[in-house]
Amino acid sequence: MANLLIAHGGGPTAVINASLYGAITEAKKYPEIDKIYGAIGGSSGILDENFINLKEVPEDEIEKLLKTPASALGTSRFPLYEKEYERMLQVFEKYDIKWVLFNGGNGSMDTCGKIFEVAKDKGIGVIGIPKTIDNDIFITDHAPGFGSAARFIAQTVREIGEDVKSLPIHVSVVEAMGRNAGWITAASALARQKEGDAPHLIYLPERPFNEKEFLEDVKKLHEKHGGVVVAVSEGLKDEQGNPVAAPIFKTERATYFGDVGTHLATLVIKELRIKARSEKPGIAGRASIMNQSPVDVQEAVEAGRAALKAVLEGKTGMMVGVKRISNNPYKCEIILIPIKEVMMGEKIMPDEFINSKGNDVTQEFIEWVRPLIGDELTVFTDFNLGLRKEKI
Amino acid sequence: MANLLIAHGGGPTAVINASLYGAITEAKKYPEIDKIYGAIGGSSGILDENFINLKEVPEDEIEKLLKTPASALGTSRFPLYEKEYERMLQVFEKYDIKWVLFNGGNGSMDTCGKIFEVAKDKGIGVIGIPKTIDNDIFITDHAPGFGSAARFIAQTVREIGEDVKSLPIHVSVVEAMGRNAGWITAASALARQKEGDAPHLIYLPERPFNEKEFLEDVKKLHEKHGGVVVAVSEGLKDEQGNPVAAPIFKTERATYFGDVGTHLATLVIKELRIKARSEKPGIAGRASIMNQSPVDVQEAVEAGRAALKAVLEGKTGMMVGVKRISNNPYKCEIILIPIKEVMMGEKIMPDEFINSKGNDVTQEFIEWVRPLIGDELTVFTDFNLGLRKEKI
Repeated sequence: MANLLIAHGGGPTAVINASLYGAITEAKKYPEIDKIYGAIGGSSGILDENFINLKEVPEDEIEKLLKTPASALGTSRFPLYEKEYERMLQVFEKYDIKWVLFNGGNGSMDTCGKIFEVAKDKGIGVIGIPKTIDNDIFITDHAPGFGSAARFIAQTVREIGEDVKSLPIHVSVVEAMGRNAGWITAASALARQKEGDAPHLIYLPERPFNEKEFLEDVKKLHEKHGGVVVAVSEGLKDEQGNPVAAPIFKTERATYFGDVGTHLATLVIKELRIKARSEKPGIAGRASIMNQSPVDVQEAVEAGRAALKAVLEGKTGMMVGVKRISNNPYKCEIILIPIKEVMMGEKIMPDEFINSKGNDVTQEFIEWVRPLIGDELTVFTDFNLGLRKEKI
Repeated sequence: MANLLIAHGGGPTAVINASLYGAITEAKKYPEIDKIYGAIGGSSGILDENFINLKEVPEDEIEKLLKTPASALGTSRFPLYEKEYERMLQVFEKYDIKWVLFNGGNGSMDTCGKIFEVAKDKGIGVIGIPKTIDNDIFITDHAPGFGSAARFIAQTVREIGEDVKSLPIHVSVVEAMGRNAGWITAASALARQKEGDAPHLIYLPERPFNEKEFLEDVKKLHEKHGGVVVAVSEGLKDEQGNPVAAPIFKTERATYFGDVGTHLATLVIKELRIKARSEKPGIAGRASIMNQSPVDVQEAVEAGRAALKAVLEGKTGMMVGVKRISNNPYKCEIILIPIKEVMMGEKIMPDEFINSKGNDVTQEFIEWVRPLIGDELTVFTDFNLGLRKEKI
């Protein structure tokens, strides 16, 4: 008998707790696992020995994890020093922890890889569970968290699109998360049901942003539709690689960027004299339980289970990943990826997913992303009773 | 036999189509009503004689109106000249329109009152159906549209609050709509379940905003909780009555304001050196069908029905309104209000709904607003598994 430790790292997603659910329920099947420690508050929970025994949490509360936003264990995001990994090892030994599951994104996988390095000669297994709304983890086809963020933006842009279509007096610039990777912004394309539906333009950080072309695109669409909806990534950069929205403030440790959506709406007002506004759901886009993708929830649970099974089988230094078998019917299989291969990477959108003008996605992307959001969106778009009837 | 006309004005809500549903289904019961004209695109639909006969729309599509975002008829927002009211009268006579229902907010009720003036000697009845997310229509206790906008902000702030609590590294400033009236922003208080829950501060346009006090409030709460969530109205003004976020651009016809949320987040970063960010759901907050309040939907339908009944009974120059009988159990009754009494008004929050420091709402407001959002919010907040367990 020995103990298991589960920790969360980085920003939450709508399904990080679903992976926790998967790992806990699977772990309970194995008599060789005594306590299931949860680290409270991510890495700092490990360093501070701040644990709970998840085996003692009642079943009905564990069930609720599937529908609980944010991180049920708390999480953290700060750089770790080398000696802190040594300190973690001491903690593992003190608490007789033989198995470690670390759930997180790129930064957390880096942490996970370093924990593996210090723990590998001690008979302690370390497996990573991927999690990211940004979908920027290397090698895996996608990661739990993205499907729900994609569903949120598709649903939200469809609703904003209906609003703007019914009162076509302005340009709405919707800003989506994803600093260097445009996956979430791109998924807004799923809002469309037919030609002319929002979003009318999609700008991604993978392509240099050209303000002149943007204004020309908006002007043309405004003449055609009256109301225009533009989806933009928070991380847009110009041809020199500088952020489109200038940094508003710099400290020694961080740079704070302005809002791209606000910046571009202002540009439309000033340069085109067209009414414009911006929407920025921000954190709401990763915390929305109503917009959970059922496919994403299921895959998150499976990732948690697979990680537990792998570490129990003696595997270590690996991250659970997903390999796409087919788009339609949608089929994926769980794989294990050496954590070293994902540690330093940041996966951006490939060329074949972005159109040649750099202001939209391709059909290939739509086919790739569609299965990840699950069921049909729940918004009726029959509103334009008038628009499709003959005038009397 | 004569014809009925229904038109929408101003910004959509999540339930404006529910009122349309109520009016149509009620109108079908009266054999004296021949055609049910819907004006396509608001006032301009009337002026351009752009109508559809809603009697010809299949039943199953009419049912969908209950769940359709934006305005199913299209809507408009522009000032009308005096001669355009005369023109409307000509159109009514040309199409044998004897009954007019106009659904909208303050601006539309003004239009409605002016239509009543030109039509009153012609045997044409005009009744207003109130609609506003901002809840700023005079006399009526509240108006359809507000309950759903309130539910949206409560749900969204609760989810953002859970996110920030689980990764307490920043201040999140959530900006809500309502230029001069703080009702929506105030409703974010419904996100709370217990002491210390988000939103930690609420700033309303009914009180002058003091940046120094704001920074002191935020600093204290940051020391206590780590993560802080602040709800602010887009229309905050300082003690001189100037917008807190300076206008970014003025044209001859309009002033465009900067984003208050972004402005205040920047202030926190610069003055307190605390990480901060902003979220601005914007239009998403009035278009969200998943966040429809069931109470709001029902009242919107009833308002549509009541308007139809009133105009058929020969009443005119009135707006349907709601009178609160009791908070608990929640009970309201439909009333008719002379449209002249609501035409020029803009209802802001009364003193007893705002706390003395001007940074929160009162229990009295909570009791007033709670019934309007309907069922319990759907977010589990059991996340802090760790926070409520003893450390091991």
